[in-house]
Amino acid sequence: MFLQFQGRGDLWRWAFSSAASPDQKRENLALRLFKQVLGSTAATKQPELGSVALVGAGAGSPDLITLRGLRRLQEADVIFYDRLIDPALLKHARADAEQIYVGKAPGCHHWPQDKICGVLVSHAKQGKRIVRLKCGDPGVFARGAEEGEALEAADIPYEIVPGVTAASAASAALGGFLTERGTCDTLVLATGQSETIAKNTRWIRHLQPGTRIALYMGVGSADKVALALVDAGLADQVRIDIVSRAQQQDQILASCNASRLVKTIEETGVTSPAILFLTRLHEALSDEMKRCS
Amino acid sequence: MFLQFQGRGDLWRWAFSSAASPDQKRENLALRLFKQVLGSTAATKQPELGSVALVGAGAGSPDLITLRGLRRLQEADVIFYDRLIDPALLKHARADAEQIYVGKAPGCHHWPQDKICGVLVSHAKQGKRIVRLKCGDPGVFARGAEEGEALEAADIPYEIVPGVTAASAASAALGGFLTERGTCDTLVLATGQSETIAKNTRWIRHLQPGTRIALYMGVGSADKVALALVDAGLADQVRIDIVSRAQQQDQILASCNASRLVKTIEETGVTSPAILFLTRLHEALSDEMKRCS
Repeated sequence: MFLQFQGRGDLWRWAFSSAASPDQKRENLALRLFKQVLGSTAATKQPELGSVALVGAGAGSPDLITLRGLRRLQEADVIFYDRLIDPALLKHARADAEQIYVGKAPGCHHWPQDKICGVLVSHAKQGKRIVRLKCGDPGVFARGAEEGEALEAADIPYEIVPGVTAASAASAALGGFLTERGTCDTLVLATGQSETIAKNTRWIRHLQPGTRIALYMGVGSADKVALALVDAGLADQVRIDIVSRAQQQDQILASCNASRLVKTIEETGVTSPAILFLTRLHEALSDEMKRCS
Repeated sequence: MFLQFQGRGDLWRWAFSSAASPDQKRENLALRLFKQVLGSTAATKQPELGSVALVGAGAGSPDLITLRGLRRLQEADVIFYDRLIDPALLKHARADAEQIYVGKAPGCHHWPQDKICGVLVSHAKQGKRIVRLKCGDPGVFARGAEEGEALEAADIPYEIVPGVTAASAASAALGGFLTERGTCDTLVLATGQSETIAKNTRWIRHLQPGTRIALYMGVGSADKVALALVDAGLADQVRIDIVSRAQQQDQILASCNASRLVKTIEETGVTSPAILFLTRLHEALSDEMKRCS
């Protein structure tokens, strides 16, 4: 058996790898539509359900939002936005739209994820059009799945508006390309958050020749990254590019190898949000890397 | 020694892993700026150089272009566009802008890459503002590096305007998220073009637990993909989601496992452009996969 949906994702949504099986998801969807039809004809009408759009704002610069994202922002009754959202974006909102900051600083959870999920659900149940505005793409390291599941559990329709992810924005800021025919044909997106990096060095196995790893939020664990590269004997084969505050006026771009990574971050004043690109080309870069050391 | 550039990527561009060394690139940039200063004061003024923006149009739907991309389109004197660009996007161009189709069908090169690079350079040398409009993100499987190098060799300033890559657009169309905290923390972008898949099965080594591979242009080599999964003993541990013509009215979404992949593609009428998501969660999916088989 296979599943097949045709049409716009807005209607036929299906969280393609969360806990419920495809069959269950299809049944839930049918049940929800059935309830909606019943609800619209019942004598005692239930308050109409609102909707939620998980909107990717793009990374770094307010002009990297998509036209669709902009339209959702303009239509929204309530906007929940993150710490790194540029205030210029919120100017697109309607004057009467409610704007609610749900920012989380790393290691300092003002708004725990459960609470964010809760307010999305409760506001949508009031019949409001909600925008949940996230930096980058809502599908990439944005905890979108948890919000999607909470909305699904509450039978609230939601839509995902994709955005420009940080790797694309940072690479463009460098003037480079994430993949390059012949030398770099695989791109890996992984997180460099301390807990992940400390727990395992699984990410390093992805660093085969012809691969570039974009390590999101990697600056805080740069020492562990460098050590893992040295331990794996890759110190001179992997080029590291650092992009801090990509696409912003104060962005910092720097390049080094593993042995210089921690020092380079110190000297250049790189701070979060930053991305580390680890590149292992098909041909060894050792000569070039030596010049950088 | 490390490299450090501060400021907007428009000015300080640097192709971060192409052939020239960082030092060479910095020297080239200095030389180019020096030439520009000389040129602007010389008695016999050279014709002013144009500029090129490699613009990501986003994938599938014309409202997935960014505001910056839209602005570049509106300003352009000449637009070179690909086969999959939605005609609705070109309506944003100025009425007097030249629109040139440089489409390439797979296996059928109307416009070889060299020729595209050549026309970008020759038009820019006429002092024109060029937009090279590409589907998705210009940094991901878009042969941007070759165009960037040709422009750099001709001393023509270029800018990369990042876009929503196909994996993000396709995942959003599925209603899913590319990464999911706790079960899928690594995303790999690779191409499924027959030549690559046939040459090696290196991509399969990326399929560690907790990983999702987005295989761009993977439908044509679905048989080889399925075979590689079976050979690696992963047939029942990897879920496959197929998204064809993501974000378009006639998009097709389907899901299956390795043994059903070729049959599912046949039965659903999936055609290019399509993306295959191969997901191996941290916990084995065997029970769910059996239900899909």
